[in-house]
Amino acid sequence: MAAIFQRTLRLRKALGYLSPHSTFSSTATARLSPVDHLGPSLPTASWQFGVCCRKLHTGADGPSQSPAAAPDRLPFSRITQEDLEFFRKILPDRTITDPDLLESNNVDWLKSVRGSSEVLLRPQTTEEVSQILKHCNSRNLAVNPQGGNTGLVGGSVPVYDEIILSTALMNNILTFDSISGILTCQAGCVLENLSLYLEERDYIMPLDLGAKGSCHIGGNVATNAGGLRLLRYGSLHGTVLGLEVVMADGRVLDCLAKLRKDNTGYDLKQLFIGSEGTLGVITAVSILCPRKPKSVNVVFLGCETFEQLLKTFQLCRGMLGEILSAFEFLDSECMRLLNTHLKLPNPISDCPFYVVIETSGSDPTHDGEKLHNFLEEAMMSSLVSDGTVATEDSKIKALWSMRERVTEALTHDGFPYKYDISLPVERIYQLVTDMREHLGDRAKSVVGYGHVGDGNLHLNITSPAKDAALLAAIEPFVYEWTAKCSGSVSAEHGLGLKKRNYIYYSKPRQAVALMGNLKAMLDPKGILNPYKTLPDNLK
Amino acid sequence: MAAIFQRTLRLRKALGYLSPHSTFSSTATARLSPVDHLGPSLPTASWQFGVCCRKLHTGADGPSQSPAAAPDRLPFSRITQEDLEFFRKILPDRTITDPDLLESNNVDWLKSVRGSSEVLLRPQTTEEVSQILKHCNSRNLAVNPQGGNTGLVGGSVPVYDEIILSTALMNNILTFDSISGILTCQAGCVLENLSLYLEERDYIMPLDLGAKGSCHIGGNVATNAGGLRLLRYGSLHGTVLGLEVVMADGRVLDCLAKLRKDNTGYDLKQLFIGSEGTLGVITAVSILCPRKPKSVNVVFLGCETFEQLLKTFQLCRGMLGEILSAFEFLDSECMRLLNTHLKLPNPISDCPFYVVIETSGSDPTHDGEKLHNFLEEAMMSSLVSDGTVATEDSKIKALWSMRERVTEALTHDGFPYKYDISLPVERIYQLVTDMREHLGDRAKSVVGYGHVGDGNLHLNITSPAKDAALLAAIEPFVYEWTAKCSGSVSAEHGLGLKKRNYIYYSKPRQAVALMGNLKAMLDPKGILNPYKTLPDNLK
Repeated sequence: MAAIFQRTLRLRKALGYLSPHSTFSSTATARLSPVDHLGPSLPTASWQFGVCCRKLHTGADGPSQSPAAAPDRLPFSRITQEDLEFFRKILPDRTITDPDLLESNNVDWLKSVRGSSEVLLRPQTTEEVSQILKHCNSRNLAVNPQGGNTGLVGGSVPVYDEIILSTALMNNILTFDSISGILTCQAGCVLENLSLYLEERDYIMPLDLGAKGSCHIGGNVATNAGGLRLLRYGSLHGTVLGLEVVMADGRVLDCLAKLRKDNTGYDLKQLFIGSEGTLGVITAVSILCPRKPKSVNVVFLGCETFEQLLKTFQLCRGMLGEILSAFEFLDSECMRLLNTHLKLPNPISDCPFYVVIETSGSDPTHDGEKLHNFLEEAMMSSLVSDGTVATEDSKIKALWSMRERVTEALTHDGFPYKYDISLPVERIYQLVTDMREHLGDRAKSVVGYGHVGDGNLHLNITSPAKDAALLAAIEPFVYEWTAKCSGSVSAEHGLGLKKRNYIYYSKPRQAVALMGNLKAMLDPKGILNPYKTLPDNLK
Repeated sequence: MAAIFQRTLRLRKALGYLSPHSTFSSTATARLSPVDHLGPSLPTASWQFGVCCRKLHTGADGPSQSPAAAPDRLPFSRITQEDLEFFRKILPDRTITDPDLLESNNVDWLKSVRGSSEVLLRPQTTEEVSQILKHCNSRNLAVNPQGGNTGLVGGSVPVYDEIILSTALMNNILTFDSISGILTCQAGCVLENLSLYLEERDYIMPLDLGAKGSCHIGGNVATNAGGLRLLRYGSLHGTVLGLEVVMADGRVLDCLAKLRKDNTGYDLKQLFIGSEGTLGVITAVSILCPRKPKSVNVVFLGCETFEQLLKTFQLCRGMLGEILSAFEFLDSECMRLLNTHLKLPNPISDCPFYVVIETSGSDPTHDGEKLHNFLEEAMMSSLVSDGTVATEDSKIKALWSMRERVTEALTHDGFPYKYDISLPVERIYQLVTDMREHLGDRAKSVVGYGHVGDGNLHLNITSPAKDAALLAAIEPFVYEWTAKCSGSVSAEHGLGLKKRNYIYYSKPRQAVALMGNLKAMLDPKGILNPYKTLPDNLK
């Protein structure tokens, strides 16, 4: 393997394309803060990216004209002493009412939405969740199901005084079948803990997110989290094999199959994947896990144009084939922010576009050869103008950090406007270019990065401070542009509170109406995560 | 590549494990008739496997006591001259009432279910389907949506006089994006035609079935077809990106997204995947297609015990990793039937169990090396006792036919009782052993084969003629055994008419009740594919 990369390095010098260095600043730390993958490791981290000057989407302030703002409080009951006594009977020591202890559960990680819940419930079992929901439903008390609270669209926190139902103590692994690779666990298992458990058994989770240190698998499923491995292992609609769900009225729906195939009737679990806790509370998950790759490589490349970047993607898919596990990009504006705010040096020479390619395979020699052949072809055909490779873990992390710390760099740049857009892959950068032209000098920075392999652009815009005129210039421009290309206004983040009213840009009225019917059927009183996912005009 | 397999052949001789021959009888033809993968190439083929002595599940004969028999006709309207005039106005020359022309649409491929429909409609557009359903819903006329009519559970034909709504003329490819690999097409495209179209563009369909020459992609999606590539590319719940569906009342639900990621609201298309035409009529499909592999190899191995076969599977997953694309098995009873009825010679020496392993990769040399290393390890550790390899297309087909023609061989053996069971992979053969012991000499043959990689057993039992006592010995034994292991009584075939009342062996009442609610919500009059999928006691 080493020999192959020696050859690659020699090739770089021989071809005169690649920069001579191949090591990175040790200040880079990998996967620390990619909020574009559902938040950070520490949801209560003290990142203060202009939060003081930001208007929170808080219910307490009442409604505003923005489609993202909270609607009026719905006529749910208010919690009483009798309710608290009931909860304390079921959950002694796990019914939390201390405002200080509730603080981090009332505010989302971005500090953009703040609720005013007065009670946090921490059940340990499905039966406890069932009793809680049965009570809440009969009492018409609204409930906010909460996992790791790492979401980015205000879906994971209460908007008003909803009871917070946390899965934090539902963190047991139930079974693992080392032949099939099927894992079952409670919904509150932290993704990273599951990954560590599996890695000891020569398996990995089929999803990986920057937020893995905090996010819960139940929350991942409820939000249909995408992340870094989707290109290779597909979406949770394919890898989740079973779910146990507590319905709004407390009934337990057992669809926790541990089978790869089951065509007995409608696949009910699919309803709950991506429904953001509005149709039921996921209490346990069964998921198909891939074998742990024996070999992982990362390449960082530079391209002169986005067209060349797309051609590189095509070449890469053909030549790396089954070992390709990620194809990510960032633009030169992202690189400028990484340099300026995080002092991360560019590992290669300056280019308009940068690509991070990861391979995961079962044979280090074969993987190295495939990568070498691909790099040779990409350089010979002038698709890439510079690049460097990493096989050691620390260097792999350093290269990944160039992609993953863009979000962190943005928080230092000013007040951020964040968009998570899905488009036909050949269009994804045009939106950045058009937005830049459209905004002119009104924005401080307009940057694009994301998952090329999934057609998923993270478009971020910053301004020195919150700027209503700038927002009015961005929206609905960004949504209309996306709709014109039949794109999605939320590729992987979901709709939550903040994006719920933009649903019509990506879904026809007929479909949204049917979603409303499903909600009415499964949660007739609307107690589950109200104000989220569905637009106000359905309620 | 050739050199590698020379080495493998040498290895076989040196180790004294493998038989010296490596060629096969040219009489073998591949993938002709694997009804376990949803039927044959020709649904009206003249296979006469004891059909004369079989009681058809026909509505015309009225109800019987078997849970598989047709229930009483529901009080739908009878078709009138006015209805026919309406249809002829929309579909001139495509409203078929000639009984001879209707014959093949009224009977399923297994000739086990016969309806008595008097009209076959062949729309070409979604708008036509919409008009038809709007009319049928308002008139309370039942409709049987039909694709290639290759299903095995009586789901694809009418039970009484339901109007047959065929997708056969909805066979246009709409778009193909050669960068993302996303194909959109009408529902009536034949799977094999899509495969041919894609192969010219260096892509493949993510599913492959024996019935590919006849089955429609819309039917594949409606039945959540499994097949030969599921192990590698996952289920249709992951690969189908969008659907266009006409609802029971004629409204068109446009969820035909061409995006890998879209988290804007509930994923409605999932409802229709595997719902067997009972919730809506799929009119167009958007699907993610993998790149065409540059290298395909097939190995046929023999194992002394099923435990060794499972260990071989484990070793194979570890050593072949990302290039493993199929791991199938058959037992010695299957081999006996292949020898006896189809004169197919055993390509290796006699063993209790046989395995077909397929690799698909992007580098023939790498794939050959991986395969060689795996075979060496498997033989050295005595997991396999004999084997042969194929790299040429004709030999690959010959080896595949040993697995795929088992179903055909069974049809020559007697009256077949067919079960498509999903189980934890380590249990799948125990069911065959237990059934054999349970039936003693009452059965002619009891054979097991199927998709080890998916935990999917095809258990088949034959008797000289239809035998009520034998059936009573098999059922509910087979379903109770499966339920005890938390398995599925229909892994990939669906429930259709024949299995609808067995749903409770694999799904709790709570789940089935919710399915009934979904049906009532989406098709309040129950006109779509009545008598299918859901149990009678819900209706």
